Amino acid sequence: MTDRALPHVLVIGGGFGGLWCTRALAAAPVRVTLVDRTNHHLFQPLLYQVAMAGLSSPDIAAPLRHILRRQRNVTVRMDVAREIDVARRRVRLDGGTLEYDYLVLASGARHAYFGHDEWARHAPGLKTLDDALHIRRHMLEAFEAAERAADPREQAEWLDFVIIGGGPTGVELAGTLAEIARHALPREFRHSDPRRSKIHLVEAGPRVLASMPDVLSERARRQLERLGVSVHLGKAVTAIDARGVDLGEERIDARTVIWAAGVAASPLGAQLGAECDRAGRVRVAPDLSLPAHPDAFVVGDLAAVTQDGKPVPGVAPAAKQMGAHAAAMIRARLAGRPSRPFRYRDYGNLATIGRMAAVVDLGRIRFSGAPAWFFWLWAHVFFLIGFRNRLVVMAEWIWSYFTYQRHARIIIGCRDETVGCPSSGEVDGRRTNRQA
Amino acid sequence: MTDRALPHVLVIGGGFGGLWCTRALAAAPVRVTLVDRTNHHLFQPLLYQVAMAGLSSPDIAAPLRHILRRQRNVTVRMDVAREIDVARRRVRLDGGTLEYDYLVLASGARHAYFGHDEWARHAPGLKTLDDALHIRRHMLEAFEAAERAADPREQAEWLDFVIIGGGPTGVELAGTLAEIARHALPREFRHSDPRRSKIHLVEAGPRVLASMPDVLSERARRQLERLGVSVHLGKAVTAIDARGVDLGEERIDARTVIWAAGVAASPLGAQLGAECDRAGRVRVAPDLSLPAHPDAFVVGDLAAVTQDGKPVPGVAPAAKQMGAHAAAMIRARLAGRPSRPFRYRDYGNLATIGRMAAVVDLGRIRFSGAPAWFFWLWAHVFFLIGFRNRLVVMAEWIWSYFTYQRHARIIIGCRDETVGCPSSGEVDGRRTNRQA
Repeated sequence: MTDRALPHVLVIGGGFGGLWCTRALAAAPVRVTLVDRTNHHLFQPLLYQVAMAGLSSPDIAAPLRHILRRQRNVTVRMDVAREIDVARRRVRLDGGTLEYDYLVLASGARHAYFGHDEWARHAPGLKTLDDALHIRRHMLEAFEAAERAADPREQAEWLDFVIIGGGPTGVELAGTLAEIARHALPREFRHSDPRRSKIHLVEAGPRVLASMPDVLSERARRQLERLGVSVHLGKAVTAIDARGVDLGEERIDARTVIWAAGVAASPLGAQLGAECDRAGRVRVAPDLSLPAHPDAFVVGDLAAVTQDGKPVPGVAPAAKQMGAHAAAMIRARLAGRPSRPFRYRDYGNLATIGRMAAVVDLGRIRFSGAPAWFFWLWAHVFFLIGFRNRLVVMAEWIWSYFTYQRHARIIIGCRDETVGCPSSGEVDGRRTNRQA
Repeated sequence: MTDRALPHVLVIGGGFGGLWCTRALAAAPVRVTLVDRTNHHLFQPLLYQVAMAGLSSPDIAAPLRHILRRQRNVTVRMDVAREIDVARRRVRLDGGTLEYDYLVLASGARHAYFGHDEWARHAPGLKTLDDALHIRRHMLEAFEAAERAADPREQAEWLDFVIIGGGPTGVELAGTLAEIARHALPREFRHSDPRRSKIHLVEAGPRVLASMPDVLSERARRQLERLGVSVHLGKAVTAIDARGVDLGEERIDARTVIWAAGVAASPLGAQLGAECDRAGRVRVAPDLSLPAHPDAFVVGDLAAVTQDGKPVPGVAPAAKQMGAHAAAMIRARLAGRPSRPFRYRDYGNLATIGRMAAVVDLGRIRFSGAPAWFFWLWAHVFFLIGFRNRLVVMAEWIWSYFTYQRHARIIIGCRDETVGCPSSGEVDGRRTNRQA
């Protein structure tokens, strides 16, 4: 329990922005409530690995409560924010209404279909663990369906994959999928050959990894093609159905399509009464607060911040820095100190493509291929260890008996509260095969 | 591809019975098709650990294709068997019809509600990975709901748990849940105290672990109570609703109820035209074939086998031995040798209860407490290593880049093929909080 007399900071969203803000308030004379609709913080840079079955969910997620258990001024609440009233300084959640003295909105972004919500049905996106498990299931079931298919044309459609969007996520997914099809699966099938899979990466713009310098985009494209990915540049998707994708006149037949293209900001941003950009991001004051409501801050992917004429990118380091800045501004207000504008420090930009394939842009230094891949690996292991001790995790199943800790306390899957789809199979008596 | 001229053995179910049968046919002059509705073999003795968030799904499951990739006479097919025609020797699956020369039915058992299917809604059972993830989600969400609850009575109902059934699964779940509530969670909540959780274990019979000798049942009960579990013996459940359980006149208020009581054989057994026992298990000839159809065998939990006047128990070693026996009988038929009756070799019976608490019955030797717990641990690590190299698995996330193998290729979760419940949240535009 925290002192009710202290100012109340309400943080919405337990991603990089919200979590780093919460941590930065550890020593401040405030009580903090951190609200997230899930029970975990997700290390999103490795989410594609969960979708591609290389990692399991607990490897890249940790319960927010567990991360913050020693920070006594924080209450973690698993709940969903529905309405924000910045005039009365309160937020309505599914489980009740909370008042605040300071609000930090860090509810991020979701993938978006540019007004074609009907595409969601055929082309799942990747933003949460549930999304990743959904894509994993689709991907694995496609290879199973190809093995069962009697018709060669149907088999080919099951073996082919389209990934829409040539940003970092699309590139990672395409490269990894090509590896899986070529190397992980081939010996295991008898009637189909996963090596005959075709992986298509479709990008509407003129190059992949548009945030990288031209030369690295080109190297990334070459590395993708070396892995066996067909890269389609300058092709906009005009339709998606269960059997494939239309790119204007062109058609790609494939029963599995993954969406890695658009992003739209959380709809909560629109409730702040502030100006938003086209993607729904909130235009904030230089110190990340709302121009009309200096007690409310917006951080992370939901904030539209421009620096030196360029938008600050929607990446984890930017979100962390914004979260920490919002916390510093709250501490400054409480101490009667003036606000400072936010400055994004860009330490570089890197993207992985596949086995021994990556590109790294550190400003003056740029490299690609195996050295870039090792650099990427090192950087991610480093940050993952900072967030939860990776080596301990590997031995955790043995030691959990002794430490009492459980590494898999992650809520995933569907939320059907009646019987739940997982067990619905037995309700109609059709669950006949042994599962053991 | 296998030689179409060879006799075709169709194995239905990739559990211990079906998988051990398939493996035992490796050198036989047959082609084998192994059908399972999932893509994985599950090490069911540790399934309760997945439900209790101690292990993640890939820790105890492996793709059947991967296990059998070097056995060239096997085709693995992920499909669902619907109808068996023993007269015409064919099986209709969702994806087509297969003919066979020999059938091995190993489709196992599901949990059953003794005619009260409406209880499934409030009291999920534990037999598959999906079940385990469903129970995990319920369990973790109950502690979250308790933290949010303003009403003390509602909070207490969220903190209390009822487990129905005092067999090995019920005992394991109750003991582990008591540990989680007392040791894993307490420091992480601010408004509720998980140490105040009450864990109730309800058993209709006079003792827990009824398959054990009396003295070990009594020791198990004492160990459970030392861990903080309330054991209710001789109490039959008369009703279950969203708020608790009725035991005749008595009532236990608890919003989370887990079913570990009844088991019913796969409904496929009833299609064989053979006699079944009360639980739906098929009464087989001494060599495990059907009396009227010697080319069809039933193994594992679906087979009703009596030995020395006692039923062979529904445990993994019995299923493995039956699977291997059916394979041996098929080889004997093909070689013109006579059938042998199946003999179950009972190596002992062990059950774990919680930290340093277990019971072991090796016939003449019986022990409990810490020594039994270490024995249980050793036995399970041993068998798990036998099934998939455990130490390699622990380092797998690092090495998967180099080996190309992915340890998490497991299909879990719901099967809603429209948008899928995992991502349905964003379809109605209500997915507002940042998930990252």
